[in-house]
Amino acid sequence: MQRILVQDLPQHVGERVTLMGWLHWRRDLGGIQFVLLRDRSGVVQVVLPGGGKLPLQESSIRVTGTVVESDKAPGGLEVHAEGLEVLSPATAPTPVEIPKEEWRANPETLLEYRYVTLRGEKARAPLQVQAALVRGFRKYLDAAGFTEVYTPKIVQAGAEGGTNLFPVEYFEQRAYLAQSPQLYKQILVGVYERVYEVAPVWRAEEHATSRHLNEYLSLDVEMGFIESHEEVMRLETELIRAMLEEARASAERALRLLGVELPPVPKEIPVLEHQEARRIVKEELGIGVGTDLNDEAERALGAYVRERYGTDWVFVHRYPESVRPFYTHPDPERPGLTRSFDLLFRGLEVTSGGQRIHRYEDLVESLQRHGLDPQAFRGYLEVFKYGMPPHGGFAIGAERLTQKLLGLPNVRYARAFPRDRHRLAP
Amino acid sequence: MQRILVQDLPQHVGERVTLMGWLHWRRDLGGIQFVLLRDRSGVVQVVLPGGGKLPLQESSIRVTGTVVESDKAPGGLEVHAEGLEVLSPATAPTPVEIPKEEWRANPETLLEYRYVTLRGEKARAPLQVQAALVRGFRKYLDAAGFTEVYTPKIVQAGAEGGTNLFPVEYFEQRAYLAQSPQLYKQILVGVYERVYEVAPVWRAEEHATSRHLNEYLSLDVEMGFIESHEEVMRLETELIRAMLEEARASAERALRLLGVELPPVPKEIPVLEHQEARRIVKEELGIGVGTDLNDEAERALGAYVRERYGTDWVFVHRYPESVRPFYTHPDPERPGLTRSFDLLFRGLEVTSGGQRIHRYEDLVESLQRHGLDPQAFRGYLEVFKYGMPPHGGFAIGAERLTQKLLGLPNVRYARAFPRDRHRLAP
Repeated sequence: MQRILVQDLPQHVGERVTLMGWLHWRRDLGGIQFVLLRDRSGVVQVVLPGGGKLPLQESSIRVTGTVVESDKAPGGLEVHAEGLEVLSPATAPTPVEIPKEEWRANPETLLEYRYVTLRGEKARAPLQVQAALVRGFRKYLDAAGFTEVYTPKIVQAGAEGGTNLFPVEYFEQRAYLAQSPQLYKQILVGVYERVYEVAPVWRAEEHATSRHLNEYLSLDVEMGFIESHEEVMRLETELIRAMLEEARASAERALRLLGVELPPVPKEIPVLEHQEARRIVKEELGIGVGTDLNDEAERALGAYVRERYGTDWVFVHRYPESVRPFYTHPDPERPGLTRSFDLLFRGLEVTSGGQRIHRYEDLVESLQRHGLDPQAFRGYLEVFKYGMPPHGGFAIGAERLTQKLLGLPNVRYARAFPRDRHRLAP
Repeated sequence: MQRILVQDLPQHVGERVTLMGWLHWRRDLGGIQFVLLRDRSGVVQVVLPGGGKLPLQESSIRVTGTVVESDKAPGGLEVHAEGLEVLSPATAPTPVEIPKEEWRANPETLLEYRYVTLRGEKARAPLQVQAALVRGFRKYLDAAGFTEVYTPKIVQAGAEGGTNLFPVEYFEQRAYLAQSPQLYKQILVGVYERVYEVAPVWRAEEHATSRHLNEYLSLDVEMGFIESHEEVMRLETELIRAMLEEARASAERALRLLGVELPPVPKEIPVLEHQEARRIVKEELGIGVGTDLNDEAERALGAYVRERYGTDWVFVHRYPESVRPFYTHPDPERPGLTRSFDLLFRGLEVTSGGQRIHRYEDLVESLQRHGLDPQAFRGYLEVFKYGMPPHGGFAIGAERLTQKLLGLPNVRYARAFPRDRHRLAP
């Protein structure tokens, strides 16, 4: 008999069906047995005649039986099965109780056994939402004339000037893992005008916090023939809205399980100049800030924007040159400032972007101003001799956005198998 | 005035429009000037009154003028413009002539200057087709209940047993770049049942041929609750057909430029047992073969299948255990053989797949039989204690498939910035 999914049971009430999945939970009352069967779409209670020995939890099983409405069953439906077939037995008890979903348990334990703790309904849900967000990202950009690109991850130098890189032994040469596709996506604007990439990036940052990963998924966008960075911010506003819509539509069950309602994205996200944001944080909120906004300042600003504008989103733009990378386009009308922006969501930076320098001489000058050696960027610089149009873009950290949207206590839960300072396995 | 794309010109005949793009080619006759403007969608001839100095080729430009039908213009349309605005000038002549599309030129030269040679209409087309193939891949699998996953690329050991790995310095630890997401996609079958990934993989293979890359894009699929590898082959047949359909629909112009008509995928791709394929190559085609089919044998087999079955596609399955990785499921009815397959297209392997071992003891035994130390695979082995269902999958090399479908002379042209034995830049 053709297998059906748990999510399709409501269309089969009174019929005989076959289900396959994992034995999520079991209770043996002798004359009658209850098990929960979990498949990729959900969990359902199965009632068995009893007598047989139930396999261990997490065994792969198949059951055939009749779909029956039941007030007592979770979800209002259960399956009365004749028996249970073990497709592949679990041979050991799981290291943690999967149905308990110990979200607030020690992350170290949950991550050590990630290969099996991820099976929990709530544990697996964030990655389903993330996949939907990424699908929304691609869908929107495909429709807007962007080309998906796949840039090299083994590179000769870092995009930001050579710090925080993981070294790779590339045959006889010394190479590094790319910390960003920045330089390549710019080159590809010269080819396809509008490009995006969804790919891992690496940062060899030593600190281990609940919001940092050493390997993460970067959603990169770059577009040519723009007037200024504000055009890029408008595109990002539409893009983020489309991503959240896709998640609402196609990860509805995962969101429900997590008890999350995704926030609306306003037609126009409020925009604050960096100087004004600093002033607000310092003078109105009484929090000390340096040249850039620190984490505490960003959080306070998020709360302020929520209060003042009634939204979780805010763009901060026109950052000073000193806190932005060398390729950032200066603001021609505001010496010392740049055409750059961050997008904050609930007080956390989820995106960094801006217009880029597109003239060769300006780039060489900027490298020098940033204390970098133009020789080290020779390959990158070359393309700017060939009519690079005004362009700009941004990058979204997928895990950080997922974490913040879903209110996860740790960014590691937004990645299948996170890599951090001490974690290389599983 | 709002910019339009070259591809939309036919809807604006007789109207005044603005175009932006690159100066693809120029000819100055004094009183009149002809330039070709190239944007992401195509190339059009622009006629200028003359007198002004034309910028260098590849400068970014903007023109405004009237769309006029013209028999002499390529494409049947040209734009009569008042003048030409330089958005960003090229400051040097390009190292090769972009409009010449020197496909058969020395690949070393083309790849050395890839950042600008990729701008050629034919040079950029393969990556547009590839993006469409990948879009088709995701679309089909999303609709079939698969979850997209993002697995770690920095790993402790190789999926195939530790050869051909690039070492990474991961803080104080020795790590490697993943040569395949194999082990992780299997673990994730235990979570989401059906998963796919589109991500780079790395092979530190020393040889440099026209069909090998040291960094390439792997399209990985893995599915649980299968009966045998033949179910996986059926899914792949449908999937490949959907990928080619997407490319035909959304990369139509790129395919036309390359003069390529994508081949049909038959409802059922012919299937040959490995032993039978070996026999055919040896006895009917008179080519010497070892235990496995070598490149020459595969090419001959491709031609044979074309002749005999009228298709470019053939599955070869049930390979001997000795030529497949340790995780391959043995064929229970055929000792020494496995439930594995390759998909050949025009005599080239574009996919390798099969059913995987899903029981802990079988895996430990297979590792030992393959001369591998189960201790080194401890993290991977653990999950097989928890009811891994029968499962299988495959991986498609995106560049190799693109190369072969488009008849490219070198697989490097199917990657934006290829990495090979000696190439780390651009």
